Amino acid sequence: MKPVLTSLLLAISSLTIAHATEPKNIIMIVGDGMGPAYTTGYRYFNDDPSTEKVENTVFDRHLVGMSSTYPSDEHGTVTDSAAGATALATGTKTYNGAISVDNDKKPLETILEKAKLLGKKTGVVVTSQINHATPAAYLSHNESRRNYNEIADSYIDNGIKADLLLGGGWQYFIREDRNLVAEFKQAGFHYLDTYAQLDSIPKDKPILGLFADVGLPWAIDDSNKHRLSSMTKAATHYLENEKGYFLLIEASQVDWAGHGNDITSAMAEMDDLAKTLEFLEEYVKSHPETIVVLTADHSTGGLTLGADKKYQWHPKILKQMTMSPEKIAKTLAKEDMTVDKLTQLFPFTFSDDEYSALVASKTDAQLTLTQYLAMTEKQQKGQRKPSVEYALYKSIIHIIDKRTTTGWTTGGHTGIDVPVFAIGAHNGLFNGYQDNTDIAKKLISLLSVQ
Amino acid sequence: MKPVLTSLLLAISSLTIAHATEPKNIIMIVGDGMGPAYTTGYRYFNDDPSTEKVENTVFDRHLVGMSSTYPSDEHGTVTDSAAGATALATGTKTYNGAISVDNDKKPLETILEKAKLLGKKTGVVVTSQINHATPAAYLSHNESRRNYNEIADSYIDNGIKADLLLGGGWQYFIREDRNLVAEFKQAGFHYLDTYAQLDSIPKDKPILGLFADVGLPWAIDDSNKHRLSSMTKAATHYLENEKGYFLLIEASQVDWAGHGNDITSAMAEMDDLAKTLEFLEEYVKSHPETIVVLTADHSTGGLTLGADKKYQWHPKILKQMTMSPEKIAKTLAKEDMTVDKLTQLFPFTFSDDEYSALVASKTDAQLTLTQYLAMTEKQQKGQRKPSVEYALYKSIIHIIDKRTTTGWTTGGHTGIDVPVFAIGAHNGLFNGYQDNTDIAKKLISLLSVQ
Repeated sequence: MKPVLTSLLLAISSLTIAHATEPKNIIMIVGDGMGPAYTTGYRYFNDDPSTEKVENTVFDRHLVGMSSTYPSDEHGTVTDSAAGATALATGTKTYNGAISVDNDKKPLETILEKAKLLGKKTGVVVTSQINHATPAAYLSHNESRRNYNEIADSYIDNGIKADLLLGGGWQYFIREDRNLVAEFKQAGFHYLDTYAQLDSIPKDKPILGLFADVGLPWAIDDSNKHRLSSMTKAATHYLENEKGYFLLIEASQVDWAGHGNDITSAMAEMDDLAKTLEFLEEYVKSHPETIVVLTADHSTGGLTLGADKKYQWHPKILKQMTMSPEKIAKTLAKEDMTVDKLTQLFPFTFSDDEYSALVASKTDAQLTLTQYLAMTEKQQKGQRKPSVEYALYKSIIHIIDKRTTTGWTTGGHTGIDVPVFAIGAHNGLFNGYQDNTDIAKKLISLLSVQ
Repeated sequence: MKPVLTSLLLAISSLTIAHATEPKNIIMIVGDGMGPAYTTGYRYFNDDPSTEKVENTVFDRHLVGMSSTYPSDEHGTVTDSAAGATALATGTKTYNGAISVDNDKKPLETILEKAKLLGKKTGVVVTSQINHATPAAYLSHNESRRNYNEIADSYIDNGIKADLLLGGGWQYFIREDRNLVAEFKQAGFHYLDTYAQLDSIPKDKPILGLFADVGLPWAIDDSNKHRLSSMTKAATHYLENEKGYFLLIEASQVDWAGHGNDITSAMAEMDDLAKTLEFLEEYVKSHPETIVVLTADHSTGGLTLGADKKYQWHPKILKQMTMSPEKIAKTLAKEDMTVDKLTQLFPFTFSDDEYSALVASKTDAQLTLTQYLAMTEKQQKGQRKPSVEYALYKSIIHIIDKRTTTGWTTGGHTGIDVPVFAIGAHNGLFNGYQDNTDIAKKLISLLSVQ
């Protein structure tokens, strides 16, 4: 590049950036566990088989870079969701299990807290319980993610930080020792507990919406298969105000499906996330003063598209499935496994081998359970109670993995870098490789632009 | 952005691009099999444990996007190296196995051929045999990658397309039926067969350098552990000329290590590639009319960093290993497995369980081999001859996987998107998501800029 021209361009660029649309609204999305195999897999899951082309997804349209995810513990270590969310919420690495506290268990100010102090509105929309690791790391500080009740209590005891909270969690918010829902109402909150109420939430009161005991049902099993998208629409509409807002969205259950090595539920959760991002893609067009950043805290399950030397990944049946393997297993544990029943539950005809394996998994588990129940309490000690449902679940996901050629290496997390997507004002900031702490730092720098 | 300012900026930008340094030299690097787990893993492999920070790698500095890799066969299918290289060399998707021919087996013009026609110099530098799938897809057209001799023959019979060829392949080039090395010499080529000769290759003759029977030795076992880097230095120096050049570089054996589920050799191959990219990073500074693009054709092995519910990946021993598991297995197959011997071969002390497993793998394989050898030819038919070396190899990689917490799901390829890196003139073209065919199209568009 010619030096004179370069200087001129730089001068113009600086001027332009200073005058460019400021990101009044910051929307951070965490696809929990959504490593690159999930976004890639979703492309083939989403593909329209009637066209020759493989259609690009909303993820493809907005990919800008990748992010490393390691926690502070030790170089090369794999993060959990708590340390991952702390990095994304505060810009600081910490130990696995930490909820926005550092290695010395000292609180770290979060971007949501900073936004609140700047007078912005703040919101949290998740498909887990709202006191789960990721939302907790934006809203509270705790030495352990496992202190669910303490974390829920802190949402009110340590000052209410969110104007809107949507997700699951009755079990933690309506307890024998304390009714936090009543306390939120007392503090002026409008409470909702059905998705239908999302259509008409009042703008004059803060909002608490809890829709399930713990996490929401799997997307594939839920009355609203795009509940994250519905909650997000309501939240963005609600939060709009002159000073802007910070909104955390989490597709929490991509991770849970990964832990269960359940590709069916994983793709349905990804579909809910994709619909959410498609909505936000349009939203940014009409609200250009908004930046949306999506990344994952880590990848889960060691998911691979293709396995066992087969050069194929066949997601077609995943799109045809109408309920989760977990729900099917619950049904089959109670009912006779007739061919008719299987035809109702699965979009494919079982081979003889598959059918035998499924029946054997139930029969074996029933036998083991009978033997277990015949034991004395002392004999049972230290042994896990056999579960017919779980045996059926394992058999079902195995059959689906074989049919789709899906591979897994763990029921936990892996250390692969995760993709980063950005839409809207200043999205170029997130181009290329960055650490998860850099994502927080960049977003925090955008907060202070105003 | 203010409309007036936008127009001004766009005007200046167009002007700038038109005047920006033109990519006279195009260097395409294929990290065969190098999915995102490999570039991520290399960061932790390369990390300096004496510092608190995890050091960024050369890959981190130049990541710009990701690429899909599916072949034309069927949506969602996993590619092989032939279809992958054809996409990268020609911009067209084809069937697995195809060497720059389309689904109807018609030849597709490659970027190397186009560059040659434009009067540029052309070169190929690989660690496989030079007639392996990836280099072949830039240099020839064949309905099957398996036709190794035909492909080698075509390098001379169909017109010599490269000014420089460096890699392995004596077995295919010096055959009973034909001596292609002699034919290349006859055609005016300077021939080299030792790495030492790379330091002083004549600039007045085209170059054929073959350094091994098939592929080069594993990087970790080679006399020059950074042989890709050495060949690249020699090639860039050699190819420089007024009209520029097109150079294909392939880190071929990342893929081979992945097929063998051998994380030790994979990281050593990645280290050779990293050193190559570090050299090119500097090279572009002094040769700004150069663009370097690095991507993978696919990922291999279903590699995961972390496995079996362990939130760790420990690459430290991989850096301390001094030879490949394959070479160790060969040694142990012939020698007594004393503690002293193992101490020489491995950078860690075997646990009792590991030692027992290793010894058992040898004893069992020896027994099976003895039984096999006692069979009649008829009985042996259809059975694979048991290999003590292979049994030891499997045992060794299993021990290393457990110690490092490395996971694999296949001895083949997977469909995950792969990272894209770009350095130098117009590297911004490769930002974000793109298909592998787009990478070829973009590079071809840069060819025609001049």
